[in-house]
Amino acid sequence: MPQEQNKGLQPKKITILGATGTIGQNTLDLIERNPSHFQVVALTGNQNIPQLVYQAKKFKAQFVATADADKYQDLKEGLAGCDIQCGAGKEAVLEAASMQTDICMAAIVGVAGLEPTLHAIKACKTLALANKECLVSAGKLFMQSVKELNTVLIPVDSEHCGAYQCLAAEQPENIQKLTLTASGGPFRNLSEQELQYVTKAQALKHPNWEMGAKITIDSATLMNKGLELIEAKYLFALEVDQLDMVIHPQSIIHCLVSLKDGSVLAQMSEPDMRVPISYSLGWPQRLQTPVAPVDLADMGQLTFEKPDMERFSCLALANHTLYNTQRLGPILNAANEIAVEAFLTDKISFTAIVEIIEQVMEKMESHLANFNPMELNDILQIDERARYLALEMLKLRV
Amino acid sequence: MPQEQNKGLQPKKITILGATGTIGQNTLDLIERNPSHFQVVALTGNQNIPQLVYQAKKFKAQFVATADADKYQDLKEGLAGCDIQCGAGKEAVLEAASMQTDICMAAIVGVAGLEPTLHAIKACKTLALANKECLVSAGKLFMQSVKELNTVLIPVDSEHCGAYQCLAAEQPENIQKLTLTASGGPFRNLSEQELQYVTKAQALKHPNWEMGAKITIDSATLMNKGLELIEAKYLFALEVDQLDMVIHPQSIIHCLVSLKDGSVLAQMSEPDMRVPISYSLGWPQRLQTPVAPVDLADMGQLTFEKPDMERFSCLALANHTLYNTQRLGPILNAANEIAVEAFLTDKISFTAIVEIIEQVMEKMESHLANFNPMELNDILQIDERARYLALEMLKLRV
Repeated sequence: MPQEQNKGLQPKKITILGATGTIGQNTLDLIERNPSHFQVVALTGNQNIPQLVYQAKKFKAQFVATADADKYQDLKEGLAGCDIQCGAGKEAVLEAASMQTDICMAAIVGVAGLEPTLHAIKACKTLALANKECLVSAGKLFMQSVKELNTVLIPVDSEHCGAYQCLAAEQPENIQKLTLTASGGPFRNLSEQELQYVTKAQALKHPNWEMGAKITIDSATLMNKGLELIEAKYLFALEVDQLDMVIHPQSIIHCLVSLKDGSVLAQMSEPDMRVPISYSLGWPQRLQTPVAPVDLADMGQLTFEKPDMERFSCLALANHTLYNTQRLGPILNAANEIAVEAFLTDKISFTAIVEIIEQVMEKMESHLANFNPMELNDILQIDERARYLALEMLKLRV
Repeated sequence: MPQEQNKGLQPKKITILGATGTIGQNTLDLIERNPSHFQVVALTGNQNIPQLVYQAKKFKAQFVATADADKYQDLKEGLAGCDIQCGAGKEAVLEAASMQTDICMAAIVGVAGLEPTLHAIKACKTLALANKECLVSAGKLFMQSVKELNTVLIPVDSEHCGAYQCLAAEQPENIQKLTLTASGGPFRNLSEQELQYVTKAQALKHPNWEMGAKITIDSATLMNKGLELIEAKYLFALEVDQLDMVIHPQSIIHCLVSLKDGSVLAQMSEPDMRVPISYSLGWPQRLQTPVAPVDLADMGQLTFEKPDMERFSCLALANHTLYNTQRLGPILNAANEIAVEAFLTDKISFTAIVEIIEQVMEKMESHLANFNPMELNDILQIDERARYLALEMLKLRV
């Protein structure tokens, strides 16, 4: 494996929240390829204790935490004989997140990542953000905290990381539009009718990206792109009319930034999460990765289509949310998490996902008129309420 | 016409060398749209005195020069009654180039632009470079002068301006490859046989760009892309194996920069020279332009092909030159200028262009072994010799 030398620099201390997921594993793959650049401080995981133990030993972590309090014994036993501290439960994860580091990779899936990531903002110099919910559910609170603490925030979503690279030398006032690309998922060409009968196995087969189950389903409904537009709004302080998306089935161009002089800057790569992850790890340098360079002549063409908001109505819901992200973001996200989980456990059909979310949003939106949650507790209460309602809607269907 | 306010800033003083050409006219179009941003100091032209007089009056230039010494009376009479100084001949052009300005737009076509542009480096803070020959014929001398005088150099070719934008926040050591795109010109799909019979009118019809006659023919032979690769080598201090090109018939993506982590930054725009010109005029800000934003969904696709070095053997000649630009650059450029001029005046066929250049290069290359011209005089002598030989070759054909 080709390794790059870290010319006399101190290795960067790094914590990975969500180390056993796809992002966490890819992060460790890159650390393995650049061993002199990094020193793993802490790792957190959830249910997959064998994987977590394996990682902790291999990378000589100082501290390991599982979010599942019941797994403490498993973890403790797995690490027996190693000089590695460990803990279990929410407090243990927060302890890991609070360890002083150069970089924290925030890659916990779902709203469970919110509190740990808010802790990490205070403890790390650079926050590599792969947890969408920090922005979708709590964007204002989150961005304010990042600003107050002067933490460098590097987005790890390929689209936002691309935008970050395009905007590195640009003045915000020159941005006319930020366009995120979407592969369109596996069902891009299906009719409304056909969408009703797609199976879980089909939905889990993303045409370009290898990702976790939740985000793969979000890509199939296009909700993922909706969530990403909300993220982009916060990350780059943009107005709704500055945000756009385009279907690009090859997933080579990730993001396009249109500037006021007619110039467009774009970022591309093969669809491999190690590109944005390596950017966040190496920043302000770039790391060597094993990702093959893009060869456009070999590909022959890149294609683009307008998205269909009718067939993919998750996009319409997200678009509606964009105008009021602070109030509607947590509801959209929570209802989506429950609905996707129900689809993944064979409780509802693919098209029922958006129906559930729509019902929850309709029910809660009027009740929350003029309430723009800013405190974490308020956000978590709305999140909880949305989950409760989504579960109620599910019961009515069974 | 929508105009942008120049919030309380001093207008930038600007000189345009080659004001009556396509680049010069587009530069003045942008100045007209942003009148509070610029103050025209000097304009130079060649034969087209009515146009030069019109421009000088409209933009209240202080000094105007024609390169053609015989046109002094015409120019003088055209400017009668205006408070505008004027001159004619080489010295007058050098005088214009030597006036102290914030920006000099160097847009003289051909090697004639070399000496004035070298003068301008000393007199302006930012040099907007549209004259390819400064780099192709005298790249080392030119870049050294730019460096010594601390002049900001902004390339105006759309490809290089795109690269400049992509590289604005990048470390040079991260660049793996710079890929320039080429439309492939009007004859992209013709066979070797068919290329022999193309007419001047066909060659002058570029599929995407409106440009002057010389560069339009260079685009049809693909020599333009060869010259641009040589330019890129000097501008961005790259090795030959870091330079690449790809055929991209839509001319939307102008340049791609591949970085060592697998990420590619690209710059796009509608094919309109006002985008790179405005970038050079506005830098480090961006100006509003009337150029329509790129709409990829509307376009549907961008296509790419490998270039065919057999059919477009100008590319092969340029590629050979790349390995020894300092010695071969002036020869390639001079022979090409003569051959293109001969084609434009109906003296030779389209395919004879490359034959002439090839013959001149073969003849001169061995004689110049180990001589790497650095002084302007040496470069101009090689240039003159190559022109003489090219003219001799032409005679043999008539």
